[in-house]
Amino acid sequence: MDNYVKTPHLIEEKSFEIITEELGEKTFPEEIGKIVKRVIHTTADFEYADITIISDGAIEAAKEAVKKGYNIVTDTNMAKSGINKRILKSFGGEVRCFIADEDVAVRAKEEKTTRAMAAMNKAIEDETNKIFVIGNAPTALFKLKEHMEAGRVKPALIIGVPVGFVGAAESKEELEKLDVPYITIRGRKGGSTVAAAIMNAILYMI
Amino acid sequence: MDNYVKTPHLIEEKSFEIITEELGEKTFPEEIGKIVKRVIHTTADFEYADITIISDGAIEAAKEAVKKGYNIVTDTNMAKSGINKRILKSFGGEVRCFIADEDVAVRAKEEKTTRAMAAMNKAIEDETNKIFVIGNAPTALFKLKEHMEAGRVKPALIIGVPVGFVGAAESKEELEKLDVPYITIRGRKGGSTVAAAIMNAILYMI
Repeated sequence: MDNYVKTPHLIEEKSFEIITEELGEKTFPEEIGKIVKRVIHTTADFEYADITIISDGAIEAAKEAVKKGYNIVTDTNMAKSGINKRILKSFGGEVRCFIADEDVAVRAKEEKTTRAMAAMNKAIEDETNKIFVIGNAPTALFKLKEHMEAGRVKPALIIGVPVGFVGAAESKEELEKLDVPYITIRGRKGGSTVAAAIMNAILYMI
Repeated sequence: MDNYVKTPHLIEEKSFEIITEELGEKTFPEEIGKIVKRVIHTTADFEYADITIISDGAIEAAKEAVKKGYNIVTDTNMAKSGINKRILKSFGGEVRCFIADEDVAVRAKEEKTTRAMAAMNKAIEDETNKIFVIGNAPTALFKLKEHMEAGRVKPALIIGVPVGFVGAAESKEELEKLDVPYITIRGRKGGSTVAAAIMNAILYMI
């Protein structure tokens, strides 16, 4: 019981070494690799090496957006919890999640939609909310797309990785058609931990 | 864009139907099935059907522990965020996570260990903390084991599902040797969303 690794920094370093080794000949450009490996680190699922999609220039755009002090909006408090706020704060940004707000619950009930959609409606009312990190709700991603097409919001980055069996894959297919810097996971997989891992990988690059 | 499912309840119901269908001949006793399917719902990863391990009587013990109003301790704020507090609160319990506490950071530094371990040291000081939900840190699980063996804590349930490449699988192997009601995921997989999904599956049964 005394011979397990107790130093957090070493645990992470060793984990990334193992991941790199097991990826074998599957290599990536440096910054893309950092994102893919952090997702695998978070899930222990190597399938993410094949289904993580990063649009051209998205990493550069993401770093710029953070440096400009834009806020991050997440669809769940889980994703919010998982994002490293210290680095973001040093540039003036913060992580916001409106899903549990009382006015959002009221609006969702009135409009007979998901709270995730009502939360997105609230998010776009403040134009410093420019980075969207969606790990759970396809409806949040669909709603964001509607707002973009209507010219109501112009995100600096969308990390769109809803997980699940109803609408998740479809919402991400739609994301890939949009003219916006994005990072996504093809198919059903994804989730709040994956969303946070991607955002953190970008924050740690800065 | 108008034909996607917007009703949260229907989305979840449909998801569980798809999961049951795709599991095919792989069936489970009802309550075990509810846990396994909720984990798959959270990850979109059917491997969890084969690696989710529930000790004899653990579900019954878990329900009893919730009904007694015991508190849940998580190793991360992500897992805490993901757990349904409403049901727990109706029995008098709450979800606690000490990882971000200032005194925990100080103790971890002094003892040169992980914050996860220092947080576990703090958790066992209050004996109403009886349900442990560990989704991330193997060191939290190892530390909990030490405290159990020293007779300092007697958990009513351990959901021990740390994810990762260094110590995670080993920590869960140790959990399976303990005389305690437990739910675990064999191997590297797991995580905060998985931990919360398992706890929620239990809460929804009550």
